Amino acid sequence: MLHSLSGRAETLMQARLLAELRDHGPLSRTELGERLDVSRTTIGAEVGRLTEIGLAQETGPAASRGGRRSTMVDLADDIRFVGIAIGASRLEVGVTDGRLAVLATEQVVCDIRQGPDVVLGTAMAAARRLLDDADVAQPMGVGVGVPGPVDFSRGAPVAPPLMPGWDGYPVRDTVGRELGCPAVLDNDVNLMALGEQHAGVARHARDFLFVKMGTGIGCGVVVGGALYRGVNGCAGDVGHMQVRGDGRRCVCGNLDCLEAYAGGSALAVDAAAAAADGRSPELAALLAERGRLTAEDVGVAAARGDLVATTLMRECGQRVGEVVAGLVSFFNPGLIVIGGRVSGLGHALLAEIRGAAYQRSLPLATGNLPIVLSDLPDHGGVVGGARLVSQDVLASPVPRRS
Amino acid sequence: MLHSLSGRAETLMQARLLAELRDHGPLSRTELGERLDVSRTTIGAEVGRLTEIGLAQETGPAASRGGRRSTMVDLADDIRFVGIAIGASRLEVGVTDGRLAVLATEQVVCDIRQGPDVVLGTAMAAARRLLDDADVAQPMGVGVGVPGPVDFSRGAPVAPPLMPGWDGYPVRDTVGRELGCPAVLDNDVNLMALGEQHAGVARHARDFLFVKMGTGIGCGVVVGGALYRGVNGCAGDVGHMQVRGDGRRCVCGNLDCLEAYAGGSALAVDAAAAAADGRSPELAALLAERGRLTAEDVGVAAARGDLVATTLMRECGQRVGEVVAGLVSFFNPGLIVIGGRVSGLGHALLAEIRGAAYQRSLPLATGNLPIVLSDLPDHGGVVGGARLVSQDVLASPVPRRS
Repeated sequence: MLHSLSGRAETLMQARLLAELRDHGPLSRTELGERLDVSRTTIGAEVGRLTEIGLAQETGPAASRGGRRSTMVDLADDIRFVGIAIGASRLEVGVTDGRLAVLATEQVVCDIRQGPDVVLGTAMAAARRLLDDADVAQPMGVGVGVPGPVDFSRGAPVAPPLMPGWDGYPVRDTVGRELGCPAVLDNDVNLMALGEQHAGVARHARDFLFVKMGTGIGCGVVVGGALYRGVNGCAGDVGHMQVRGDGRRCVCGNLDCLEAYAGGSALAVDAAAAAADGRSPELAALLAERGRLTAEDVGVAAARGDLVATTLMRECGQRVGEVVAGLVSFFNPGLIVIGGRVSGLGHALLAEIRGAAYQRSLPLATGNLPIVLSDLPDHGGVVGGARLVSQDVLASPVPRRS
Repeated sequence: MLHSLSGRAETLMQARLLAELRDHGPLSRTELGERLDVSRTTIGAEVGRLTEIGLAQETGPAASRGGRRSTMVDLADDIRFVGIAIGASRLEVGVTDGRLAVLATEQVVCDIRQGPDVVLGTAMAAARRLLDDADVAQPMGVGVGVPGPVDFSRGAPVAPPLMPGWDGYPVRDTVGRELGCPAVLDNDVNLMALGEQHAGVARHARDFLFVKMGTGIGCGVVVGGALYRGVNGCAGDVGHMQVRGDGRRCVCGNLDCLEAYAGGSALAVDAAAAAADGRSPELAALLAERGRLTAEDVGVAAARGDLVATTLMRECGQRVGEVVAGLVSFFNPGLIVIGGRVSGLGHALLAEIRGAAYQRSLPLATGNLPIVLSDLPDHGGVVGGARLVSQDVLASPVPRRS
């Protein structure tokens, strides 16, 4: 018989309660008791303590289910998290409530190659504007994503390609100090995977992959509901897996990396070549119109029926599908979500990815395997950042300064 | 303050205590208290209960560390597990003690294509001989491995290629009924990975891969110390990942699967061709001597300086290394263990695997990544089977019939 909770058991119980409220709240005391498999008395006591320290609140009577009427419980409605998604050429800062609904965001064009002082300065300014506008004195935590490998325990990028000046820079501690709250740093793809898990198509998936197709290509790996980072924090680096090719050299120095063919940069280069040598009239027209071509222009030209653009898009999808097939064989996930800017090329691209992946994988592994586009085109990184730091903050509930 | 353990908390404590004794025993009460982070009084009470139900025993005073002398605790010395490793052409049955030391084994040549009645009958007869010889009335559990995909929750093979008659056969329940004890079924590679984790080179690894090179090629995936099976139980099916090739068709129907070049069967076919057309004098001599060639003969001929055999072995290693490189990029493991019959080709093969894997992977992921040969050439599957069922049995301690 459990007479009283030890300190550690109580912390664990409170953490689970807060996570339930974040992901499924508001909930009645009765529902909380059912979800945590403890008595309503215990729930009442814990909710009382969490209310005292400013993390939870009671919001009135629950709808009757017969019997004694229960009370609704929610996270304190003044809890705020900050998510910061730093990309290669732009960054997004957002403020969320305790349940990670995005209340306000700001996107800023900002080249990561300007280095951490400029980029983080820009992000901090945006965060302060948003917090001031929302009258938030003190966010409960900030989660930051950067487009490169991260030493999660140190909170710093590690040898990130294409990010001069960022190697070893204490991003986590800098941002935490600036905003005066707990901070975490991870790579952008992991944040997007968490965002998808919290608010997107992966909401009920325990073992899934999130493949980000952007300037580069990366993969977030979720095992048993939690991010799997690998022993050095660089799991999911699928952009440099080898695909069939003609010996094209990648920026990493190796030959025939996926990214060298299917990354956004590679697509843009291929598109420019096709525009320049007259093979693609539509891409040439777009180039003349805009001065430069992006991966998205390949989709535009393909939609206008351009043969070369269509071929580029199909080959991109086939190569991604080839790698996805290998991941399916190795990892046997329950869901694969395709996201990122280049995934905006849409369902024709998705069809190629699926075709290649299903063809090469075991029927047992693909029988019930959905391969779908992200339905969180916006704010995925912001929600993921908020989610990541909320996991830390809610796992060790402490009284809030207020 | 923790006054008393609830039933569930007590079960959990006992399970952790038993697992510590299995993996690190015998241990003094003091050491157990430190490992489990509880008081010596609590340990004393739990050891008393486990002794009563026949799972643990006290074995005398521990060596003095100063202060009050502690008592040594061990698993009951009459605990026995059975491990059964069924391969394509032979099977091994072994009996272990509670700490999974192999006490006796029997290997039997037995073709899996004879179907479950014959093969399981052979295995059961061997198990009974071993148990009778050792005077074991009642093993505590039996773990079985088969060379094909398994539905772990149903305890049956699922559409296993090259195993006619086994699809859906209730192997777990049949074996458990025959031996009168709890049983589990998994694929052979997962068992070998567990064996390596318990008694081999992966003993302290939390996130590692075990690549089995046998007739086929498969991979055991361990995440956070536990087997990762994927959502359909077919994670680690790396034999059908695509490699660079000349369009060779695999038994699975796809082109250029790893196994179609580097599996033991493929090597044997390549060796026979080189012997037949006169390219390889050493392989021809071995063929004349033995009547047929195996993958191991490639190693023998290579050791004698045969150029074609050496090339076959190197190409095998390069292709395995190519796939391993992809797994490193995706999974960022802390250790890769290469095992199975074909890995007996030895260090020259390993050098090729390493060369290809290190060349293609991120420095961050390979900086501290050992790629090593299994040091458990024998009994790995038996130990793994015993380990797998011991996890179940020790997790829910119940009084033993005796």
